[in-house]
Amino acid sequence: MQQTHRVAVIGLGLIGGSMAIDLKRRGFASEIIGVEADPVNAAAALKIGLADRMVPYDECVREADVIILAVPVGTVLKMLPDILDRIGECAGIENPGRTGGNQGAGVIRKVVLDVCSVKECLVRSVHCHPMRKCYVPTHPMAGTEYSGPWAAMPGLFDGRACIICDSGESDSHSLRVAEALYSALNMRLIYMNASGHDVHAAYVSHISHITSFALALTVLEKEKDEKHIFDLASGGFSSTVRLAKSNADMWVPIFSRNRDNVLRVMDTYMEKMKEFRAAIAEGNEDNIRSLIEDANRIKRIIR
Amino acid sequence: MQQTHRVAVIGLGLIGGSMAIDLKRRGFASEIIGVEADPVNAAAALKIGLADRMVPYDECVREADVIILAVPVGTVLKMLPDILDRIGECAGIENPGRTGGNQGAGVIRKVVLDVCSVKECLVRSVHCHPMRKCYVPTHPMAGTEYSGPWAAMPGLFDGRACIICDSGESDSHSLRVAEALYSALNMRLIYMNASGHDVHAAYVSHISHITSFALALTVLEKEKDEKHIFDLASGGFSSTVRLAKSNADMWVPIFSRNRDNVLRVMDTYMEKMKEFRAAIAEGNEDNIRSLIEDANRIKRIIR
Repeated sequence: MQQTHRVAVIGLGLIGGSMAIDLKRRGFASEIIGVEADPVNAAAALKIGLADRMVPYDECVREADVIILAVPVGTVLKMLPDILDRIGECAGIENPGRTGGNQGAGVIRKVVLDVCSVKECLVRSVHCHPMRKCYVPTHPMAGTEYSGPWAAMPGLFDGRACIICDSGESDSHSLRVAEALYSALNMRLIYMNASGHDVHAAYVSHISHITSFALALTVLEKEKDEKHIFDLASGGFSSTVRLAKSNADMWVPIFSRNRDNVLRVMDTYMEKMKEFRAAIAEGNEDNIRSLIEDANRIKRIIR
Repeated sequence: MQQTHRVAVIGLGLIGGSMAIDLKRRGFASEIIGVEADPVNAAAALKIGLADRMVPYDECVREADVIILAVPVGTVLKMLPDILDRIGECAGIENPGRTGGNQGAGVIRKVVLDVCSVKECLVRSVHCHPMRKCYVPTHPMAGTEYSGPWAAMPGLFDGRACIICDSGESDSHSLRVAEALYSALNMRLIYMNASGHDVHAAYVSHISHITSFALALTVLEKEKDEKHIFDLASGGFSSTVRLAKSNADMWVPIFSRNRDNVLRVMDTYMEKMKEFRAAIAEGNEDNIRSLIEDANRIKRIIR
């Protein structure tokens, strides 16, 4: 029988809210305890039914046994050590004298996980924390270009990949809970170290957002008449520019925290653009063709 | 009552094939006469039922009253004067002595239109042709990243925009036939001159394809292990890279024929990428935020 959990979700936006929906309806969570700093989002989350009740941040660790940090990475960086401190305090109260480590499976039952798109800065920030083993760094790779509690939807994670980082640094209980949680979300689990994660995330996710933002900026600058964009935007343009609707609160800290990897991918990308530009400028159809046919190899990989 | 037409479709790929499907089932075409240089595509088009019969290129003008050129722009450039010559010959045979112009509505009933994504080079190439008025340059802005007769589908054009260029250069009969044809495809008609079309097409269509090709090339170069791309590709990456599956036969001549407009948009795009890069490299979160929020304005325009 599946074990049920009291799950605190800090940040009931697209990701946190969608997790809340499926964890509750699929029986992983007996209760969803919401934490939401923004009063409008908090009211919406309750009204939509993403959480059973809302509690102040200070109370969520005490009330829940699984804590999901679904806020931007800059906020997670500040919260995570504090959450681990509080887990330590709870463990200390329940098991006096045993706060220093996490020996004895079954002693500390609280687990915290984050869902950020950047991982290395997070694992570094709590590397020496005595409760580090209660933390599982995860990245469920799903989303849409929308944000806020009203963007939350059932089934968002079904069939997508979830990366679990540095799994050897979490204790077996925490890891098992995280794995059960993502299994309830129907995700494919992939294990990777945090620095490898950040490299791959830059290639297959962060750069797509930057190219989309740059495309939107280009078209908005060039097409002063928005009606033209509206009239002429084909399905191709819409899908390529879709990510440019993404939320700054989420993406600013991602680019900033994964700076070196993102810059490296951007440099390669700009090299490719320059090759394309040169081929077009020279009217070299053979070179244009060979670039396109090289790019077409993506067909074999992406449906 | 809707007038029906014998419609020749030259090139039964994604666009030609999808037009054939809807023109037939919606009663605009009494018969679809297919012309397809590639024997595999020709056999597939017949088997799928895109055309009622196939004829050699040489015969299609004589057999049809509407001729749709749905082949790459380089091929259209070669075919279009020849098609207009043949229309002139048919008119001369049917109406001896009247091939020099197109006076007398009702005399010449044959209409040719192309569906290319580049227009100025086409209208220039037949500017002085005596049968120019039988030609309607059009661009139905719809498509997918797939190609060939097997990519054709019903409803592809419903609700999308179709640009009709330099409409004053076509005679009223030809224009009416083209308008009725695109109305049967449920398209929104937009009128524009050919050079304006090419500028807008570069902004909202051609550049999206280049950014997508460059993204695919970047990820394929950086991620030597294709399994990683497959595993990690999120919905965001897939939608941004989708156009990179597009066919070289179609896109090489587009980039080459719309070179100056495409280069100008690429230059603006690369400026935007550089601004992004500088903001990230400097760790200037205010600048990153302001770029993202500027790009977010696309939300108001694109669903």
